[in-house]
Order: sequence, then C-alpha cells, then structure tokens
Amino acid sequence: MRKIAESTVRRLSLYLRFLEEFEAAGVATVSSEALARRGSTTSAQVRKDLSFFGSFGKRGLGYSVPELAATLRDILGLERRYAVAVVGAGKVGSALVQYRGFPSRGFHVEWVYDRDPAKIGSAWNGLRVRDVAGLEADFEEVAPDIAILAVPADGAQAVADRLVAAGVRAILNFAPVQLAVPEEVAVKNVNMALELETLSYALRNR
Amino acid sequence: MRKIAESTVRRLSLYLRFLEEFEAAGVATVSSEALARRGSTTSAQVRKDLSFFGSFGKRGLGYSVPELAATLRDILGLERRYAVAVVGAGKVGSALVQYRGFPSRGFHVEWVYDRDPAKIGSAWNGLRVRDVAGLEADFEEVAPDIAILAVPADGAQAVADRLVAAGVRAILNFAPVQLAVPEEVAVKNVNMALELETLSYALRNR
Repeated sequence: MRKIAESTVRRLSLYLRFLEEFEAAGVATVSSEALARRGSTTSAQVRKDLSFFGSFGKRGLGYSVPELAATLRDILGLERRYAVAVVGAGKVGSALVQYRGFPSRGFHVEWVYDRDPAKIGSAWNGLRVRDVAGLEADFEEVAPDIAILAVPADGAQAVADRLVAAGVRAILNFAPVQLAVPEEVAVKNVNMALELETLSYALRNR
Repeated sequence: MRKIAESTVRRLSLYLRFLEEFEAAGVATVSSEALARRGSTTSAQVRKDLSFFGSFGKRGLGYSVPELAATLRDILGLERRYAVAVVGAGKVGSALVQYRGFPSRGFHVEWVYDRDPAKIGSAWNGLRVRDVAGLEADFEEVAPDIAILAVPADGAQAVADRLVAAGVRAILNFAPVQLAVPEEVAVKNVNMALELETLSYALRNR
C-alpha cells in the first residue's frame, strides 16, 4: 500500500464519525456528496481519499453506510482494543485519563505514571497512579500499545527512550520537544500553541 | 497570496521553533538541510514550504536565522498579541488556562467561562471564572481574538453561535462536533481520539 498522508488519515477518521452519525439516524446508503457536505469538503476529495484503499460504492447508488464504516474501522485499525499508558499525571494527563472519547474507539487507559511522591498511589478515575521508576518492571510481561507522554519538556526524551526500550511502538507526545525514536516507532505530536498558530495564521492572512 | 495547506502552516510553526533553538545556540545561518534534519523532513520540502512566501536565503550561504525567524513570525501572525477566552472550566479548560506554551507565543488567556455555579467565581491561575451567561455583556466593548471551546458536545454549537455574534473570528474547538460557522470565522478542531487514530492507523499499517 502507498504511503498515505496524515491529512488523509485524519479525513478518514472524520468520515467514519459522519458514517456513524448516519447509521445512528437509520440512513442505509450515502453519496460522496452527502459525506462531503457533512465534512465541509468536496465530493472529489471524498472519492480520492477512499480510492487509496480500493473501490467502494456503486455509481448512482452511493456507499453502503455500514459497509463503508466497517472498512474505515479496519483501515484505521479500530477493530481491536488498544491498551494505553499515560505518563505524567499533571493537568494534561488528568484530562486525558478522563477523556470520554477514548474507550468508545477502543483506546483504554490502563496505567497512569508520575514521579511525584505526592501523586503516586492516589486514585484517578479508578486507576492508581504508579511510580514511573517501576515502568520497566510493569511492562515486562505486556507493554502498552500506545503511550501518551504528558511530562515536562526536559524529561520527555528520557521517558520516551525507556518506553521504546520497554516495547512501546506508538507515542502521543504532548511535550513540546521533537522526540528522537527508532523508525519503527510512530510518534504523533500534539502542541496546543501550534494549534493556536494555525488560527493566528488565518487571522493574519484573511 | 495562494491558499496554503494547513500542513504547510504547521511545518512553518515547527521551522520557527527550530530557528529559535538555533538562535539560542548562537547559530547565525542555517541551511535547508539542517532545518530538514531537525524536523525529520527533506530539504526539498523546506525550500518548497518557504517558497510559497517569496525568496529567502542565498545559494550556498543558507538562511539568516534571525531574519527567517522574523519572517516566519510575521507570516504566522505572531508579531502581535492575541487575547484568548476559554469557555468551559473542566479538565481540558483547566489544562489550557495553565498551558505554559501560550504566553511566549503571544496568546494570553484573559477570560475563563463556565455555567456551573460551583465553579463561577473561583480563581484559576489568577483569573476569576465568569458566568457564561454574561459573555455578550463582557465582550460588548472588546471581544477576544480567539476563543477556545472546551464545553460538552451538546452545548458547543450554541456557545459557538454566541461567540461569533459577539465578534469572535477564530475558535479552537475541543468539543467533538463539527461546528457550523460563517465563512469569515476560522475554526480549528482538536480531537484527542482522532490523534490516537493516526497512531492506530500507523500500528495497523506497518
């Protein structure tokens, strides 16, 4: 399969959400135009995005909503369960542990770590905050599928190295640093200032 | 100016961060290769991204670090101050009000709103949580440049409508809904489950 741009993957995630809305509303088939309208994009874009993954839909009939939803879930790897560890029990970590949108997509936070003795042992949404010093021992038998890194910038690379050594192959990074990881490890950076800069750019260039 | 893809704008934001690192390290000029290495991209990509905005650098000499940084700040609209309102004083709102990366980029959270009487009036990072019912009155003289919407999904569109009516022209939306806004309003959606899905996609398709 060709390498697909992240922007395409993000649109597939959105299409899946729209299809689930249509499904909940009892809609059986949907046109690329309807999907495009829902996502404020063009039907040509919808057809192009889906064409990367084979041929869907019938000319004049549109897409079967449940079939296309199942295919997108498969493409996005959402037909399985992911065990997630949150490292860093600060404000961001706290928001993520309680994030309601995760379990419904198969993402289950099963570990929370911090290095602050005042936090270690406290209960968070039914989870006990663990000592980050014990990370390697905890992951000896089974490592999380995904780690969410929500620690300060200066400690992030060291924690990332330990996570990778423990077998983690996907990291959602909230620390404002560019992590160096082996090629087989997927990293997705989330930076709130960067999100605001797409808005300052829009305000500046209107 | 041509319409620039959001992915390009995001890379410009990253280049600016790298240039600021180089500047702090006392580096005066930088090649597109060095910028590319720092950002795990190609020098062709760097040159293409910058070419949208005119001609920079001298062949064989590279880019002047302070000049290119200033140009990128100008392109990204970062040469000014932005007043930001956070609507929704939950976990996400709390993390954002205290986010250290904002003030250094010119984003200043000046208002926090909630509708919960238990939260209204409490002090958050030096700000008093205000009653969202008073939003229109508060913004009568001066509206925020950017609003961060961190309310539950079912109330998000109604709050967005009120923000737009009050003069807000840029919204960072954390609610898991597609907002309908007039064309002149910039919206950037942040969805944590979607971020994780770029990782589940990577794990699935390796």
